[in-house]
Amino acid sequence: MTTPTELWHKLASLPRPTLGELFSAQRDGGEGADEPAGAARVAMLSGRIELGDGGILFDWSKTHLDRDVVAAFEELAEAMDFGGMRAKLFAGEIVNPTEGRAADHATLRGTGDPAKVEEAAALIDRMGMLVEAIHAGALGEIEHLIHIGIGGSALGPALGVDALSRDLSYCDVHVVSNIDGVALEQAFAACDPAKTLVAVASKTFTTIETMTNAESALKWLRDNGVSDPGGRVIALTAAPEKAVEWGVDETRILPFQESVGGRYSIWSSIGFPIAMAVGMDDFRAMLAGARAIDEHFRDTDGAANLVLRAAFADLYYSRVRGCQTRAVFAYDERLGLFPDYLQQLEMESNGKSVTADMQPVEGPTAPITWGGVGTDAQHAVFQLLHQGTHLIPVDFIASIAPGDDLDAAHHRILLMNCFAQGAALMAGKAGEDPARNYPGDRPSATMLCDDLDAATLGALIAFHEHRTFANAVLMGINPFDQFGVELGKQMAKAIEKGGEQFDASTDALLKAAGLG
Amino acid sequence: MTTPTELWHKLASLPRPTLGELFSAQRDGGEGADEPAGAARVAMLSGRIELGDGGILFDWSKTHLDRDVVAAFEELAEAMDFGGMRAKLFAGEIVNPTEGRAADHATLRGTGDPAKVEEAAALIDRMGMLVEAIHAGALGEIEHLIHIGIGGSALGPALGVDALSRDLSYCDVHVVSNIDGVALEQAFAACDPAKTLVAVASKTFTTIETMTNAESALKWLRDNGVSDPGGRVIALTAAPEKAVEWGVDETRILPFQESVGGRYSIWSSIGFPIAMAVGMDDFRAMLAGARAIDEHFRDTDGAANLVLRAAFADLYYSRVRGCQTRAVFAYDERLGLFPDYLQQLEMESNGKSVTADMQPVEGPTAPITWGGVGTDAQHAVFQLLHQGTHLIPVDFIASIAPGDDLDAAHHRILLMNCFAQGAALMAGKAGEDPARNYPGDRPSATMLCDDLDAATLGALIAFHEHRTFANAVLMGINPFDQFGVELGKQMAKAIEKGGEQFDASTDALLKAAGLG
Repeated sequence: MTTPTELWHKLASLPRPTLGELFSAQRDGGEGADEPAGAARVAMLSGRIELGDGGILFDWSKTHLDRDVVAAFEELAEAMDFGGMRAKLFAGEIVNPTEGRAADHATLRGTGDPAKVEEAAALIDRMGMLVEAIHAGALGEIEHLIHIGIGGSALGPALGVDALSRDLSYCDVHVVSNIDGVALEQAFAACDPAKTLVAVASKTFTTIETMTNAESALKWLRDNGVSDPGGRVIALTAAPEKAVEWGVDETRILPFQESVGGRYSIWSSIGFPIAMAVGMDDFRAMLAGARAIDEHFRDTDGAANLVLRAAFADLYYSRVRGCQTRAVFAYDERLGLFPDYLQQLEMESNGKSVTADMQPVEGPTAPITWGGVGTDAQHAVFQLLHQGTHLIPVDFIASIAPGDDLDAAHHRILLMNCFAQGAALMAGKAGEDPARNYPGDRPSATMLCDDLDAATLGALIAFHEHRTFANAVLMGINPFDQFGVELGKQMAKAIEKGGEQFDASTDALLKAAGLG
Repeated sequence: MTTPTELWHKLASLPRPTLGELFSAQRDGGEGADEPAGAARVAMLSGRIELGDGGILFDWSKTHLDRDVVAAFEELAEAMDFGGMRAKLFAGEIVNPTEGRAADHATLRGTGDPAKVEEAAALIDRMGMLVEAIHAGALGEIEHLIHIGIGGSALGPALGVDALSRDLSYCDVHVVSNIDGVALEQAFAACDPAKTLVAVASKTFTTIETMTNAESALKWLRDNGVSDPGGRVIALTAAPEKAVEWGVDETRILPFQESVGGRYSIWSSIGFPIAMAVGMDDFRAMLAGARAIDEHFRDTDGAANLVLRAAFADLYYSRVRGCQTRAVFAYDERLGLFPDYLQQLEMESNGKSVTADMQPVEGPTAPITWGGVGTDAQHAVFQLLHQGTHLIPVDFIASIAPGDDLDAAHHRILLMNCFAQGAALMAGKAGEDPARNYPGDRPSATMLCDDLDAATLGALIAFHEHRTFANAVLMGINPFDQFGVELGKQMAKAIEKGGEQFDASTDALLKAAGLG
């Protein structure tokens, strides 16, 4: 059997037709004459996943994937035992060896080991009961929720609320993450303390930013005449005993499983603020959309698996073509926070230097994920995409149904611009002069949703979770730990403690700031 | 004289001591024994710029700049006639040859050719009179401003308002850029039409997103009982005749100069929403902070010029060390939009493939600018910074004075984390096992502000404008045009017009969306 190293060498040595050649089946030296071109190529590299009420079209045809590249990646998937790793993931076996843990986020959507699925469903039901009780007035008149959490305890809630609650919100949610008090003060300014709940979200219930912000939020409630500030706190955590110690009543603690990672926790009680804003029906629809992706990812083999195919393209660009970044542009204002969400998911998961069996990795790992919303980004960063010197694989996301009720011109222009950008990046155009020359041959993929509803958002997130996992498996790394964040925390503690000497620059900065 | 190509080769062949070696002056083979180490190194590579009431410390010591690298870049600056190009910039001569234009943004701060400075001052005075008249009630009771613009007409206003108006705002400003109607509807939902002004910002007054949004905003005012919606519009443009044609009364048109580029226009009437929110005194303080940077940049030679020094480091990483990205993390919630602002400034300016004299560039041009706010980013992307496989030069920005009135612990923890991250990236740490290993030797620069007031924000922005210009001069490219954005616009128009056949993928997407 060919080894992974040999397969990477093979991938690097394959011919590199341009996108124009691939679409016209015109390849150097007559090679690739049997490669499907035009509409046949689009058919080969596009597919839909149905989500019940609608679906998403995944078009990867404007990438440099061709039959040879795909075949080599399928061999690599075999060599890396992709099927076995995927089975372990869904069986709830240990896939995070450094921490000795499973990664059970899919169980929250109803996919996986039945006992774990049952446990997860019970936790979500418990959250649902509390959400519905609050909506029914059990904690008094509640108009605002200040959700305090950071990293995985903030990015998912912020995305979900921003994407889904614009038309109708049961509750005004403010997500506060930064230790910078400016963030919390901004939430205070927007909330009536008499009608405000505080959610404290921390997997360990020890995160310094979150606990400091939580203390200050309680003080604000107290200073503003709320007689029992503690009674306004909902704890979202995998360490319920710590929340009890901190003073939260058990009835207001919503636990989630230790085996759900922070950056995969939107489906758990960390999603409480989403449910508070949009209601449990939409929250459950989000889970159902994710489940549709779970099932496609679990049950489809080879490049017909649209998630795996996306990972093939990702790795082709990052490892064969030397791309240090990947960009995502949602042509939808409601997905303005999606690039931020993906940054954590992809970079914290796969920004590693050792393999799961503790060997140095043989090539680059996660690229830098960046992006923005269209059409805004066209007026900001697309200059570099079209005429810069770096090759950047781009993902476009759009929704056929509009999110607005304004004149139809708004949404029509939005979609036309999205498609035009993908077309222009690929086609390029010879310029009247070198400054007006567009080289083209720049790849993009498009995810075209029927409608950006809760199920679709859930599906888009789950698609990227599994895409990240597939990337990790093919690189042989563990996507579920994050030891890289520890050293900075240790250093900050050492500074707080005092007495230690750092490098001359750090010492000078501390002194300048009056902390030295 | 050594040619630029030879100097790039020289830079690539210089020894590459680690940061640890540079700080301890321990270099391979006894080389660099006279290289300043420790505090002497920090003194060599740090400097303050005073802004009247406060200042900013620029510490570049934790980059791989050393005396040899700096000397080679100083030679390169000579070879590229940096001094001559800078003199042309400030003299108002043509520095944008493809469009035959000067780049007069510094004149808005009072720096440059006296006749142009006088003209700029008159335009700002005119804006000031209108702002103060509105604040005094000349247009009735105004509580909200919907500012409509995109790209350079949106990013500066959004940043300025977000950074400076949290404590006290004369007017509630909503910046709307996206053609997606969801963006405009969000502003509508937050504003009382009877008390709302609409600013329409477009250099050409033809930008399709902006004009479409402006029409819809007028319709909203009309539909909500405002009898003279046109009377609520302020036009911010370099094409006042177009604004008149569109129906804006001349008294409510605030022009700016054709020679001010969109991404350099925050200082002009495009800054109107900032002045509306924070008042003209703060707006003028922002200009004064920028002027302090202008003067430092104009009057300081060689690496003592802190802006030029930053450009040396930028180019060392992008061209010698192969970095495709540069990251900026502001440890300040108020600078949450700063990375977005820099993305446009740097990537649209320097994401080019040809030199100013129309030759292919010899190396990579602008890297991808990305980033976020601390401490949030520590819980999202710092894993990759510490343990990923890509080298990423990082900038930290922080303010010694807190922006909040909460317990002092918030700001103290914020600053300690900022300094700890720079220290940790550089020092690294040998791990108990490979998954817990931190290689270190990862560079960062720190901009430490006394206080993040209006003058400091102006200074930070102007620093990056000139840094971008210095990068461009040393690469020999024109940072002031942006032809890369044209092809996509042409393609979108061709789609709108209909009848044209595109690639098979684009045709299929158009059909799926009901637009084909």
